[in-house]
Amino acid sequence: MSTSTDQLGFAGGRLDRADHIRVNPDLVAQALASPEARCLVLDGLDPVTQDGHLLMEPILPDARIEDHLLLGLDDSQRPIFARLTEESGANFVPSPRSRTIANEVPADEVALYGAARSLVHWHGRHPFCSVCGSATKPEKAGWARRCGSCDAEHFPRVDPVVIMLAEHDGRVLLGRQHSWPEGFYSALAGFIEPGETIEEAVAREVKEEAGLVVRSIRYVISQPWPFPSSLMIACMAQADDDKLTLDETEIAEAIWCDADDVRAALASQPGARFNCPPPMAVAYHLLKHWADAQVAPAGASA
Amino acid sequence: MSTSTDQLGFAGGRLDRADHIRVNPDLVAQALASPEARCLVLDGLDPVTQDGHLLMEPILPDARIEDHLLLGLDDSQRPIFARLTEESGANFVPSPRSRTIANEVPADEVALYGAARSLVHWHGRHPFCSVCGSATKPEKAGWARRCGSCDAEHFPRVDPVVIMLAEHDGRVLLGRQHSWPEGFYSALAGFIEPGETIEEAVAREVKEEAGLVVRSIRYVISQPWPFPSSLMIACMAQADDDKLTLDETEIAEAIWCDADDVRAALASQPGARFNCPPPMAVAYHLLKHWADAQVAPAGASA
Repeated sequence: MSTSTDQLGFAGGRLDRADHIRVNPDLVAQALASPEARCLVLDGLDPVTQDGHLLMEPILPDARIEDHLLLGLDDSQRPIFARLTEESGANFVPSPRSRTIANEVPADEVALYGAARSLVHWHGRHPFCSVCGSATKPEKAGWARRCGSCDAEHFPRVDPVVIMLAEHDGRVLLGRQHSWPEGFYSALAGFIEPGETIEEAVAREVKEEAGLVVRSIRYVISQPWPFPSSLMIACMAQADDDKLTLDETEIAEAIWCDADDVRAALASQPGARFNCPPPMAVAYHLLKHWADAQVAPAGASA
Repeated sequence: MSTSTDQLGFAGGRLDRADHIRVNPDLVAQALASPEARCLVLDGLDPVTQDGHLLMEPILPDARIEDHLLLGLDDSQRPIFARLTEESGANFVPSPRSRTIANEVPADEVALYGAARSLVHWHGRHPFCSVCGSATKPEKAGWARRCGSCDAEHFPRVDPVVIMLAEHDGRVLLGRQHSWPEGFYSALAGFIEPGETIEEAVAREVKEEAGLVVRSIRYVISQPWPFPSSLMIACMAQADDDKLTLDETEIAEAIWCDADDVRAALASQPGARFNCPPPMAVAYHLLKHWADAQVAPAGASA
């Protein structure tokens, strides 16, 4: 339960999501009225911490169900809520605060914050019905919204993203986006589109962004990424060759790195060929997965 | 390219999704004006076939870009469009027609239909802005909508779903939903929620629906499922025991089946213990993956 600095961020939630409560308005009301219930405090979409934990407050006596989202039950069976806001535009750009949380509280609390952030953001973006334009209201303890006019139901989004390392001849491909500082590289990534498998999305993204044909795509690890509500699906893929044709609107630069390059970057060694994402990001774990599987060359000191 | 009866449905699309065209209005206009361009004909959300292929028609001379979605370029570089409708409620329940298509046209056309169905459905459900309630209009050749009032951008949904076989002592768990006929069973499944990894969602769903604790979760295969826009993520999981506590609101009955039971069902043998989903469904392939990996007992004739 201690802050784990090599922990994948936003994964490892421990709450019982208590689906059976959500769907029963009487049980939701009981949970909100429970003296044990707590409300996760957010500052807009940012986390608030105290003494190395997320700040939780008792539920206010005049709390209304329709303003609260039931995140679940904690290890002590305490109902944990978050407060919904209809400030639809406010504070929706990820702040540094929402990313540094991974170094401040235990991993399961990082995951709890991530789930709350995605859901509160979704409610903030959905006060109106996309079908008819009328007002919507939360239901199912915040796990849905319903239109008061056309009765359409709307559910929180989870947007699957593929993130992948194309491998060729003992090296993997890393890219730098235009908005990243010089020297910072990561795995290529992109949203899965309607009508694609995971593997088809990986092949399309690598072709679009780097001009490479890949095969033998293998799933490695996944991660929820609450900016605003992605599911990162990390894969390895074998490239037929290493000749790049970059989509320069997406990728500023790309480099092929061998296992020593990657190990040096993972260890933040001085002189490492690139700066890699921090352990909270799934790309770090994908790189580590690959580097750990490579046989160190004879005589290597790494 | 022939109709493949054991093909996973809606996977295997061959269109170049041509992202570089979508983002460039001039290129979209050129594509729509091309004499080679074709429009996939839909009947509401249902497919229309002719001579064993999806029906495609030339683009009408007065076609407007804002009514068309660019699905991509076919093998002959012909731009393939679908027409958008704003009949938001019409014909949105999956018809039998939208499922039997897998037996009527080549696999890559099934995939093309699936992508088109998901996207046309999404547009039909999003004429209004969920942020402010004003009207939205398609942009990026139908791969986004933008609000005319608050300028919010909205993107097509893909809803990731986990579908899984819990395994214990050489048997796998199958469930029957209340709406399914007697004797029909499949893998358990459920939507991935914000704040979960794939593996966490698998564990939660199996616990919720069957009361089982699972571990060693392994990804097997994925599939786009256009009803309306799911990404099915199929996994195996090891259950600690076989004692079931069913969520009877979700699951009417559940059975543990051994490899012979599964092989008989996959082969639609008379007297098979259950009726399994057809090959177009990912559950069929997950069951086959598992059964193929089991060692046939000595003397078995299967």
